[in-house]
Amino acid sequence: MNDSRIWTAALIVIGDEILSGRTHDKNIAQIAKWLGVQGIRLKEVRVIADDVDAIVEGVNALRARNDYLFTTGGIGPTHDDITVDAVAKALGVAVIVHPEARRILEDYYADKGGVNEGRLRMARVPEGADLIPNRYSGAPGIRMDNVFLMAGVPHITAGMLDALTGQLQGGAQLISDTVGAWVPESEIAGLLMEVERAHDGSQIGSYPFFREGRVGANFVVRSTNADTVKSCIDSLCEGLGEMGYDFTPGGI
Amino acid sequence: MNDSRIWTAALIVIGDEILSGRTHDKNIAQIAKWLGVQGIRLKEVRVIADDVDAIVEGVNALRARNDYLFTTGGIGPTHDDITVDAVAKALGVAVIVHPEARRILEDYYADKGGVNEGRLRMARVPEGADLIPNRYSGAPGIRMDNVFLMAGVPHITAGMLDALTGQLQGGAQLISDTVGAWVPESEIAGLLMEVERAHDGSQIGSYPFFREGRVGANFVVRSTNADTVKSCIDSLCEGLGEMGYDFTPGGI
Repeated sequence: MNDSRIWTAALIVIGDEILSGRTHDKNIAQIAKWLGVQGIRLKEVRVIADDVDAIVEGVNALRARNDYLFTTGGIGPTHDDITVDAVAKALGVAVIVHPEARRILEDYYADKGGVNEGRLRMARVPEGADLIPNRYSGAPGIRMDNVFLMAGVPHITAGMLDALTGQLQGGAQLISDTVGAWVPESEIAGLLMEVERAHDGSQIGSYPFFREGRVGANFVVRSTNADTVKSCIDSLCEGLGEMGYDFTPGGI
Repeated sequence: MNDSRIWTAALIVIGDEILSGRTHDKNIAQIAKWLGVQGIRLKEVRVIADDVDAIVEGVNALRARNDYLFTTGGIGPTHDDITVDAVAKALGVAVIVHPEARRILEDYYADKGGVNEGRLRMARVPEGADLIPNRYSGAPGIRMDNVFLMAGVPHITAGMLDALTGQLQGGAQLISDTVGAWVPESEIAGLLMEVERAHDGSQIGSYPFFREGRVGANFVVRSTNADTVKSCIDSLCEGLGEMGYDFTPGGI
């Protein structure tokens, strides 16, 4: 593996319920963190409606420019679950009933009334796809080329991610560390810029907050090189100390 | 106002901290709900990195095909705050220091050490832009044509949205109502599809959940016509009752 190669992923969150504000998305953060551990960087997320054309456009734009593309949502049994059809259309393949998925569903629903028309929808996959095990509710996720179709319900997606752990090639993990201080970020913007410029391959993010009636910020250093991260954090702590601010390694 | 015209918006969430999974986004849901009340539909969200080229691409793609485009994040005082520069580049205009923004910052920081180089960054706007008041922390939001630059910190964005309430033209509000039932959605997929097909202009979304060890789902009906929503909900309740399921108007 070449550590200097950066592996990237994109995510499409499919769901009117997110765009209406009814449901708070939980999949972005969990997939982002999981990808980080695999050595893969999440580059872009799109949240789009339950609309075939919108999904086709997003899938084709993002799968071409990333190593991996994940989708969440729209693979259930109801009429508004159109992700499989849209992804198949984007990839230019037919939709088929996957024999193994059908068997999984027949087993899962054996004591729950059996497989009906709606449930059989969850065995449909783009032709040529593989299955991703779902240890919670039968209906599998789907892998087709570099596209991974996951559930919308977060704990089911978590189980599917577990099943994929270690299966995807990635590169060097992005290492991060944090220092927090009770300081308005606007007072130390110069320090942040100087430290970042002095350390090749580092990125420093500044995340202000208001708590207990006071202003503060966490400064997050990221790099693929652990020594670079440590040196940046040391420089930030030294600078904050010289300017007379209290700071907290690890973040506030 | 022509009620049949649908007004749309898109949102770009700018921030490495969301893509790393470190921070859970809270702006998507609050902006989505606020837009809904204005009679504007959120059509698409993109979460992109602190990267000028990525922001330029997103801004130009989304502002052209929506009535409004909102961005959150990247308008603070530090080196990683690049949204103003990226939006100006996308719109092909220069970045200037807005005199009123400068005065606001001078007032706000008068007893906090005054305006320094970092703080003055927050007076920079694309040439020709107007300001959006920020009642919490001085630095204003920015409106440039149909593009609205909001803060990343959710409660500051909430204040900016308050300031914009009633200022943006919208159309008919999308009305929604919910019925919940302790039923696997896969058992009533047919009912959902029938009811939606029988009601022009309706959309029915099915949102399964697992609680207290039991499977259930909420069924959300949306339409711009209140009578359509009511009739759909009535049909769903009748169908669920006939099939022997308990249901809860308003959702579970």
